[in-house]
Amino acid sequence: MTLQNTREKNYPEWYQNVISAADMGEVSSSPGCMVFRPWGYGIWERIQRALDNKIKETGHENCYFPIFIPLSYFQKEANHVEGFAKEMAIVTHSRLTMKDGKLVPDGKLEEPLIVRPTSETIIADSFSKWIKSYRDLPVMINQWANVVRWEMRPRLFLRTREFLWQEGHTAHATFEEAEKEAKTMLGVYASVAQNVLAMPVIKGKKPEYDKFPGAVDTYCIEAMMQDGRSLQAGTSHFLGQNFAKSANIRFQSKEGTQEYAYTTSWGVTSRLIGSLIMTHADDEGMVVPPKIAPQQVVIVPIIKDKSTQNEVMLYATKLCSALSEKFYDGEKIRVKVDTRDKSSVDKMWEWTRKGAPIVCEVGSRDIENEVVMVRTRTKINTSEWKQIIPLNEFINLISSRLEDLQNSLFNVAKKRLLDNQRTDIKTAEEMKDYFSQQNSWVDGAKGKVAFVRGKWCEDPATVEKMKEMKISIRCIPEDQTKKEGNCLLTNKKAVLDVIYARSY
Amino acid sequence: MTLQNTREKNYPEWYQNVISAADMGEVSSSPGCMVFRPWGYGIWERIQRALDNKIKETGHENCYFPIFIPLSYFQKEANHVEGFAKEMAIVTHSRLTMKDGKLVPDGKLEEPLIVRPTSETIIADSFSKWIKSYRDLPVMINQWANVVRWEMRPRLFLRTREFLWQEGHTAHATFEEAEKEAKTMLGVYASVAQNVLAMPVIKGKKPEYDKFPGAVDTYCIEAMMQDGRSLQAGTSHFLGQNFAKSANIRFQSKEGTQEYAYTTSWGVTSRLIGSLIMTHADDEGMVVPPKIAPQQVVIVPIIKDKSTQNEVMLYATKLCSALSEKFYDGEKIRVKVDTRDKSSVDKMWEWTRKGAPIVCEVGSRDIENEVVMVRTRTKINTSEWKQIIPLNEFINLISSRLEDLQNSLFNVAKKRLLDNQRTDIKTAEEMKDYFSQQNSWVDGAKGKVAFVRGKWCEDPATVEKMKEMKISIRCIPEDQTKKEGNCLLTNKKAVLDVIYARSY
Repeated sequence: MTLQNTREKNYPEWYQNVISAADMGEVSSSPGCMVFRPWGYGIWERIQRALDNKIKETGHENCYFPIFIPLSYFQKEANHVEGFAKEMAIVTHSRLTMKDGKLVPDGKLEEPLIVRPTSETIIADSFSKWIKSYRDLPVMINQWANVVRWEMRPRLFLRTREFLWQEGHTAHATFEEAEKEAKTMLGVYASVAQNVLAMPVIKGKKPEYDKFPGAVDTYCIEAMMQDGRSLQAGTSHFLGQNFAKSANIRFQSKEGTQEYAYTTSWGVTSRLIGSLIMTHADDEGMVVPPKIAPQQVVIVPIIKDKSTQNEVMLYATKLCSALSEKFYDGEKIRVKVDTRDKSSVDKMWEWTRKGAPIVCEVGSRDIENEVVMVRTRTKINTSEWKQIIPLNEFINLISSRLEDLQNSLFNVAKKRLLDNQRTDIKTAEEMKDYFSQQNSWVDGAKGKVAFVRGKWCEDPATVEKMKEMKISIRCIPEDQTKKEGNCLLTNKKAVLDVIYARSY
Repeated sequence: MTLQNTREKNYPEWYQNVISAADMGEVSSSPGCMVFRPWGYGIWERIQRALDNKIKETGHENCYFPIFIPLSYFQKEANHVEGFAKEMAIVTHSRLTMKDGKLVPDGKLEEPLIVRPTSETIIADSFSKWIKSYRDLPVMINQWANVVRWEMRPRLFLRTREFLWQEGHTAHATFEEAEKEAKTMLGVYASVAQNVLAMPVIKGKKPEYDKFPGAVDTYCIEAMMQDGRSLQAGTSHFLGQNFAKSANIRFQSKEGTQEYAYTTSWGVTSRLIGSLIMTHADDEGMVVPPKIAPQQVVIVPIIKDKSTQNEVMLYATKLCSALSEKFYDGEKIRVKVDTRDKSSVDKMWEWTRKGAPIVCEVGSRDIENEVVMVRTRTKINTSEWKQIIPLNEFINLISSRLEDLQNSLFNVAKKRLLDNQRTDIKTAEEMKDYFSQQNSWVDGAKGKVAFVRGKWCEDPATVEKMKEMKISIRCIPEDQTKKEGNCLLTNKKAVLDVIYARSY
């Protein structure tokens, strides 16, 4: 029941196949936008819940700011940017009216409105009103929202014109406190990625040329996809006083002086769902880590003839309620009986393609023997995929079974990340040669082009060289050797360790 | 510490005063839109959580559909509407570029996009792809989203250009099942309004002239505000096959025939926050029902001199952790110590204006006596506002104290709803006379114009009469006497009981 395209055969097509086989999302008739179907949105809800809890635990509160930003707010920013041009959705009219049997835009606005691509400017505007004294600081807020960027090559979950995200914004009295905040939130992102999404990441910061405009430092987490490319999974910006100065966020200090606040902003988006697919899915479909699976266990009743229907349904329902009383990751197990009017084989494959962690099949023979037939999604294509387990043992150990599954997903991905970081490349020639290879699936036989960890001399001219090689510096990782070596782009002496890779 | 405007003095101004005194929201520099501040958004999050749980319990799953709807989708609808004109935000361009030092819209779209005012059309488009067979039915989904309607007279929470809501959309194989669904969801709304928001409502349906366009029936819940006006707090539409026909949502029945599905849609919005204010707030500020209060208990340490600081903070922290281990409404108590650098009197008043259900003040004298000074928000201006309670008693009975508070809010509002429904008006003249009175606060001495329960003859000409009187039929309530009487607008014989009122 392998997907039409495997990772090795055609990786980009395989990615699309997973999404449609798992019913996670679809292209919309609204150009460049997508529909999140229940299984895809359910995963997002779980990510939201886990991250939202952490955001609140670290002292932030949620807010909501308008989706429309007056054009004049961008003018200020544009004044500092050579050749400013931004792909954004612009609202120019406020009424639809009928003219000669056709609907046309009417009610032209005095000032066009931009559908938010991010909210720094409009939130800074509120901050400047809220903050008067050091007593009002810190201000630590977050919002969950939709944002729009006019992407020309949309791809489901990874890059769509509208996407979902959270954006945190904070203001502090001191440089140190704000810098610490930006780092703390990067830590929160890394922890959620690793402990909840089972996705190992490299923590670091962006090189100067790739920082968020106006940021003093942009911190990021980078994850390795199964084709060896890097996906930026979250960013946290320390903005210094730059935004405070342009939005006039000032406060009276304890000493009575007027000071500009120090601000941060940080965000993760629904592209995390794309990164989950490319971290965990296989050639049979999606694989969802238990902590974020909308259903952790699905029970499929097998009714061979009508006479056994009642007893099988009773057994399935009892199993379901016994499991739903058990806890995993601080919450009750998410389990249901699939009672739809479809064949049990179709149901089993449907849940397998969706990547439900555990599918149980129960029929009349299982009742006699007081057992359950358990299919563990991660063990597909091994002899352990199907296991017959005594009913009580299965119920009592469900939590540790899910935890094992969660850990095994992390470990496989962690091994991939470690195994595919070349550190033995020493010259610009070797580097060029390495990235000129055709790439496909890093776990498979073909192509192994993935991350290179090596030196960078920080020369601005290297940016052009990387463009030619279709790579970029993904981050300057936290763990630096601090030893001298040769820059992998110029062969010049250099100390900084960086991660070079292709990226999404 | 009464607000600048009381309900009696100036009700509309009082409403604005509550919002700003409680820091719930503010006017934004984005025209007609608003900022939800943490206390306002925190209330919305609690409403969302309670409603979302119910939506899921009743078999629905969450999805997400694009914010932009192609203009052509509205053309279809407009073909059936005389003089179609709708106030909506229209995106016409996709790029901002610099011309002569000024940013201007560029990249004109081939087809303008509408920022969703509601999502029936775009969701029906997906339904038509998802639904092929009776086996695919029912489809029962919901989305939490922002929507935009170009309101010309915005009012915080009640009517803003952008607002937040949930919209449920379902498709069913039969008339009966879809009609039952629409009624079930009205029941869910009524239950959340009454049991969570402590806001009594009247369940009913809209008269023919006020139904959602294309609906067979529009069910609604109506609540009485403190000025006697009615606020529509939720609607549920049974759409029959109308939307299925225009979007071609068809399925193969068990018998092999092609049938149109029956659909429903239902929604509540962030205006519920406005209705909460006008149900529970008083002349001192907001009053939040415990079930949706972002903080249920706030502890204010009173430190008269530095030497007692440590012991007072220790006592406050211990009280906080003891309370946070207790449960109310299935969740741990939301409690915090207010450690900000402000005077304790300022803090107490700030939390009072925000409407935190319980504010505790603890100082060194309380430690000696092992007591807590408890202020119960609902008891302000009575001798019971401040109570000194033994520490352990307070901790052990916190849950029932919050429950009493929740119930008392409901009971006060329920009494208001019952006391201000006139049923003794018998003629068109009396009716006209009644609604010609100046209105203010129904609980107060002045003005008592509120709801009238009486007969309606269903004559379409009555709509104009109601407009003149600035009233409308809020709903045809579920409980009908089925006895004949005189229509309150025409004096003609009529059987139908309706609720007449001014409205928001």
